[in-house]
Parts: sequence; structure tokens; C-alpha cells
Amino acid sequence: TIDPQRLWDTLMETAQIGGTPKGGICRVTLTDLDRQIRDWFRVECEALGCSVGIDTMGNMFAVRPGKRDDIAPIAMGSHLDTQPTGGKFDGVLGVLAGLEVMRTLHDLGYETNAPIMLVNWTNEEGARFAPSMLGAGVHAGLYAPDMAEAITDRDGVSLREALEGIGYRGDVPVGQTRFSAMFELHIEQGPILEAEGKSIGIVTGVQGMRWYDITLTGRESHTGTTPMKLRRNALLGAARLIEHVDAIAHAHAPHAVGTVGMVEVRPNSRNVIPGEVFLTVDFRHPETAVLEAMETALHQAIDAVAGEIGLAAEHRRVTDNPPVVFDTDCIEAVRRGTQQAGYESREMLSGAGHDATYTAAIAPTAMIFVPCENGLSHNEAENATFADCGAGAQVLLNAVLDYDTR
Amino acid sequence: TIDPQRLWDTLMETAQIGGTPKGGICRVTLTDLDRQIRDWFRVECEALGCSVGIDTMGNMFAVRPGKRDDIAPIAMGSHLDTQPTGGKFDGVLGVLAGLEVMRTLHDLGYETNAPIMLVNWTNEEGARFAPSMLGAGVHAGLYAPDMAEAITDRDGVSLREALEGIGYRGDVPVGQTRFSAMFELHIEQGPILEAEGKSIGIVTGVQGMRWYDITLTGRESHTGTTPMKLRRNALLGAARLIEHVDAIAHAHAPHAVGTVGMVEVRPNSRNVIPGEVFLTVDFRHPETAVLEAMETALHQAIDAVAGEIGLAAEHRRVTDNPPVVFDTDCIEAVRRGTQQAGYESREMLSGAGHDATYTAAIAPTAMIFVPCENGLSHNEAENATFADCGAGAQVLLNAVLDYDTR
Ligand SMILES: NC(=O)NCCC(=O)O
Ligand SMILES: NC(=O)NCCC(=O)O
Repeated sequence: TIDPQRLWDTLMETAQIGGTPKGGICRVTLTDLDRQIRDWFRVECEALGCSVGIDTMGNMFAVRPGKRDDIAPIAMGSHLDTQPTGGKFDGVLGVLAGLEVMRTLHDLGYETNAPIMLVNWTNEEGARFAPSMLGAGVHAGLYAPDMAEAITDRDGVSLREALEGIGYRGDVPVGQTRFSAMFELHIEQGPILEAEGKSIGIVTGVQGMRWYDITLTGRESHTGTTPMKLRRNALLGAARLIEHVDAIAHAHAPHAVGTVGMVEVRPNSRNVIPGEVFLTVDFRHPETAVLEAMETALHQAIDAVAGEIGLAAEHRRVTDNPPVVFDTDCIEAVRRGTQQAGYESREMLSGAGHDATYTAAIAPTAMIFVPCENGLSHNEAENATFADCGAGAQVLLNAVLDYDTR
Repeated sequence: TIDPQRLWDTLMETAQIGGTPKGGICRVTLTDLDRQIRDWFRVECEALGCSVGIDTMGNMFAVRPGKRDDIAPIAMGSHLDTQPTGGKFDGVLGVLAGLEVMRTLHDLGYETNAPIMLVNWTNEEGARFAPSMLGAGVHAGLYAPDMAEAITDRDGVSLREALEGIGYRGDVPVGQTRFSAMFELHIEQGPILEAEGKSIGIVTGVQGMRWYDITLTGRESHTGTTPMKLRRNALLGAARLIEHVDAIAHAHAPHAVGTVGMVEVRPNSRNVIPGEVFLTVDFRHPETAVLEAMETALHQAIDAVAGEIGLAAEHRRVTDNPPVVFDTDCIEAVRRGTQQAGYESREMLSGAGHDATYTAAIAPTAMIFVPCENGLSHNEAENATFADCGAGAQVLLNAVLDYDTR
């Protein structure tokens, strides 16, 4: 059995790297703080006798040898990057629980059949470089490496420059590192497990997600001298689109969600009518057909708003993640691992995207969820209990060993 | 008579300091570019035999002696700072036309009775440090110097730090520099003169203006996992307020204008429901009673929106400029100066605030407007014709000499 105290202590200690006054973590991908946690992660894994490979996307693979080196490793993992105002558990729990599994195996001198691998995927959050889950996505062949390296953040820094900047553009060609299965532990980031008083979610798939970039262009002019009738206010257009996005999600209740998360106003000055606004849209639903309908409604809304105000509108879909169904054998390993430990559980879909969403395309994959307080995530107040973190790590260990001895 | 070609050349040459690819100027107050234009301005004035005093707010006063040193100078002036995406004429025309007047007097060896003063007021735009027209406002005693120096930009840099940073915190106590009248030439920044085919606006006053800061606080959470019903989306609240501000202005047609010019979203990440939004409101109207009614409507809108979505709202009025009526003698000097030169003109109110708005509180003041293309200002495409710039400078010279020989 794993050591829940050691896991908790490791969570709390590493939360200092990028720790915020409000108790969260700001450790945005490929910043110097990300470099610090990566350096720490590498040292800890090497101390357990693992070899650590780094690919050209900065994905980190720590491998503990097994009895047989003719079979690909069984992987665990998640991400160590956070949102700008992220919590202490999102992603981090999956990596550090994997580390706790490695430590437990190491303490016991336990020899698995397959090698065991622990992965830290690059840029899961997508907060700095969109799309999210990019390291895993390129690994799985869903995005071309060249395209990914050329993506820039809002300051114009490319992903490749950022990788080189912190010394984490490794020499292993991305996608070359193989594994035979992947298990990801994560906080649910939603309210379901908590509401039902269950410790473990056996995740059978992930809902679909589509992201859009929109730029509205009107005419900058003086707020004091430009009569209301002569305005082409890009921000008024953005405001209407924000309402439309909300309404589109409500129109596909109860499962649809829709959000504008980012807005940039130009020139963003008190006495200038905004001439240009950039905004992002995030739509999610378990069914592709509904996402399709939401997209059609978004296009209609953009046209309508642009027409009303006299704006030019550019928009494009920047991410399209179809709904994912996880592997039956991996799900079964999680189910048995949960029963073995005796935790209350339920089967469920993931509302958020995860690295596992993409690894599912190339290897048998499943996920384990644990509850988080008030279903709150992407918030510095994000919280999970000591007991639930331990439960998640235990089920991760059990599932990996179950899969190994299948 | 002034030399319109020399004026135009000076406008175009100095537009290089902070010149933008789109033909505008980005010369935000107290940046290094502002320092460059100030250095240039000082050298040019000194070359004409003027003494240049700088006060603790960075306001620059160039004085050309007159026959009598027992009477306070007649001032001309405006501002050399610009919006982040400003045009080549807003403010700059008033200062450089004043310089052209000085050059003309110098070339002719003309001796005025009163000394003539040319002023470059600090931070007229208010784009970096709100409120706008701050240098003139402190000079006029409407804002306390300590309060003004403590104002910070959105990066937390105080006005005093910024003044010291570019070496323009002068040693003359602010408010000590006296003048007996002030004439400000400015582009109209609105569509009226152009529509009527007139070259000169004889400005009899300034409409009232109120500015507000609003912060809406909801709850940051994950866009993929947070059901629509459990959201407290601060950006949805901001969107509704933007609509309300527009509606409040329309409800007080035809003279009211209302604008949200600045929006800052936190954390501004695609997959985080915005937890906090800061936005600014700008209301204008020629009558205080209507501004009062607009403010009441704004308060009701904030309460309504916060209630609908479950947000906390903080708001405060950061600027209150009552309507201003200019001095009859100064207006008469402008009127006669216009007739003398034979330009088509009309009397009008200013839609925008100007340094003259504040100097009117301490000295007889009036303004001269010239048309700008499509009424467009606070835009890099802002434009005024060679002929109209020359006409404005000529009327400025005429008005000053008329007032001097009254
Ligand atoms: N789990 C998580 O927050 N992933 C980021 C991608 C998403 O927004 O779903
Ligand atoms: N003229 C001008 O743009 N002044 C800035 C203050 C205002 O917004 O009216």
C-alpha cells in the first residue's frame, strides 16, 4: 500500500514552487517555475533508479525497469504545469501519485513484469499556448511537431523558444516513446463525486470539446465626441457574443457548457471606443452532433452581432476534441483496483480534457477521479482531502499492478 | 501671418517620435518617447529665447518676455502625450501651433505687451494615469499634488516614479506659474465642423464628463466541468453592463454618450470561467442633471446584474468634470481673430475634455477647434488638413494678439 502522508507532504512541498498567497499555484508551462519543478521531478525519479528521457516537446518519461524488457512500459502520469491562478491538485496529483507508486514499488523492491513509466506531459493547461494537452497531443500524432513548436503565446514567444529557454527541448523525437497502457489519476474538477459522497470515479470517457478564436473589428474613436449613432464599438459586439455563448449552452441543457474565458480589448483606454476585441469560446458536450449544432449557432451569432454593429469578424476553430471512449481492459483494471481497496465509486465521463484524452488514441487508457471541494478547479482555492488523494494513489497502484499481472 | 508649411513640417517631423506603422503616434505620457519629445520641445523654445520652467507635475512652461513684466503672461498650449494608438494631431497641434506662433513673433521681432507663454501639460490623455488632464487639473487646484503623484498605472508604477524616471519632475511648485489667459487650439475630434464645411470652431464651453471604475467578482472555475447553473461568471456580468451603458446613453439621446473603454479579465484563460473583471465607464452630457440621471441608472444596472449572476460589485466615480463655460473676453478674442482671417466658423461646445477645461477654473480661457477627417480621433488614422491646421494656428496668433492689445 502507498503512503498517503508521504504523498501529501510531497504535494504540499512542491506547491511552494509557484505558490500563491491565496494557496494556489501559478506555474505556467515553460516558465522558470516550470523548469524548477521539472528539475525537481527528474532528480526524484533518478533517485528511485529510473532513467528519465525528455522528448523534443519537453515531455518527461521516467522509466523503472521490469522483469521483461520486451514489452512496452505501463504508463502513469499527468502534468505539473498549472493555470495562472491554478490550484494545488489539478495535474500535479496525477504526477505525484505516480511518484508515490514508484516510491512504494522501490521501497518494497517489487519487480513488475512490464517496466513502469511516469510521464509529465508538457502544456496540458493550454493557458499560455493553445491548444491544451499539447504535449500529449503531439505525442499521439494529433498535432504536427512543427505546428506545435511554432505556436506562440500572447506575447509572441513560440513554444520552441520557450522550451529552449528553460532547457527542456529534449533529444528524444516526440512520439517515439512507447507504452502499452496509460493510467491517469486526476481530481474530478466538477461537483458529482462530492455530491454523492464517493471517493473514486472510474472514468469511462471524456466529453467532446471545441475551442474558437474570434476577432471583432470596429472603429476606434473618441468616447466624448463620437455620437452614439456613428459608433462601431467592437466591445459592444463582444458583449453580445458573450451573452450568445451563454444562451447557446443553456439551449442545449443539461449537458452543454459554453464559456468566453479570454477577452483582449484594443486599445483598452478609458476614452477610446474599442476598435478591436479578441475573445475565445469554449464549448463542451458528450455528443458530436450537439457540438456541431452549437458551432452553427455560434456562427449565426457572430454574423448577427457583426451585422447589427457594423463590425468585421474573423473566427476559427482552434481545437476540436471529439468525445473519447476509454479502453475496456484499462477501465476494468481501475474497477478491480477500486474494489480491492474497498472505496465507494461510480463510473462517469470526464467534463475536462486530460492528457489521457490524447493517449487514448495510441494506447489503452483509462482515468481515475477523486473528488475536489465544491467541484472547484482552475481556482487557487481548489482543494482535495488527504484521504481522497491517498485513495486515488492506492487505486492507481492497484490498477497498474492489476494490468501488469493480467 | 504664421507659416503653415513650417507648422506642417514640424507636425510631421515630430510625429516620428513614437510614430506607428499605421501613421499614428504612440507616445504615452511619461514614457521614454514622451521624454524625447519634451527634450525636443525645450530645445526649440530655448532657441527662440524663451525660458522654460518645469513644475513638479512635469508641466512645461516656455515664456517669451513682453514689454511689461508686471502682467502675467498670456498662455497658449495643449499636450504632447498621446493615446496608445493615437493620431498625429490630438494635443500636438495645439502645442506646435503655439510654437509656430512663437516662431512667427520671433521672426518679426514682434514685442507683445504681456509675456507670451507656451505650455505642454502632463498626462492630458489619461490613458496611462487616470484621471485625464491631470497636469492642468493639479495646476488649477482641482486635484491635490500628493494624490496625483500617488496615482499608479495598471502596472503599479506611480506618476511620481514615472516623472522621476524620465527626469521631468521639475522644481517649480505646481500651481505657482501664473498666466492671465489661456488659449488652446485643438482638433474637434468629432464630426460637426467637417459636416458643415467650416474651418474654425469657436468653443464656448465643454460638456460634463464622469468616469467610473467597476470591479465585478464572481467565482473562477473550470469551463468544462462546471454546470451552467452553478456558475458565477464575472465576464457575463461585464457583458451585461456594457449593454446597459450603451442603453443608458441611448435613453438620453441625442446628446448623451456612454462607453466602456477598458476591460481586464482575470485570469483571462480560455478554460477558466472569469472570476474577476475590471471595467471603466465614461459618460458625457452638457447638463449636470442628465449626468446625475445616468449615474443613477448605472448604479441600478450594476445592482441588477450583480444580483442576476451572484456577483460582488465594487464601483466608484473616479472623475467628475462638470460642464464648463469659457470666458466671454477670450471667446470674443477668438471670434475677432477668426473674422480678421476670414474663415468660416461656428460656435460650439467641446465633446472632449481638454487642458482648457481645467485652466478655465483659474484664468480666462477659450478654445479654437479645427475639423478632423470623419470626426475621427483617438485613432491612428486621425487626420486634419494642411489648410485647417494653418487656419487654426493663424486664429491662435490673432486671438492672442487681440487679447494682448485689448
Ligand atoms: N483538466 C484540465 O483542466 N485540462 C485542460 C483542458 C481542458 O480545459 O479541459
Ligand atoms: N481631448 C481629449 O482627448 N482629452 C482627453 C480627455 C477626454 O477623454 O475628453
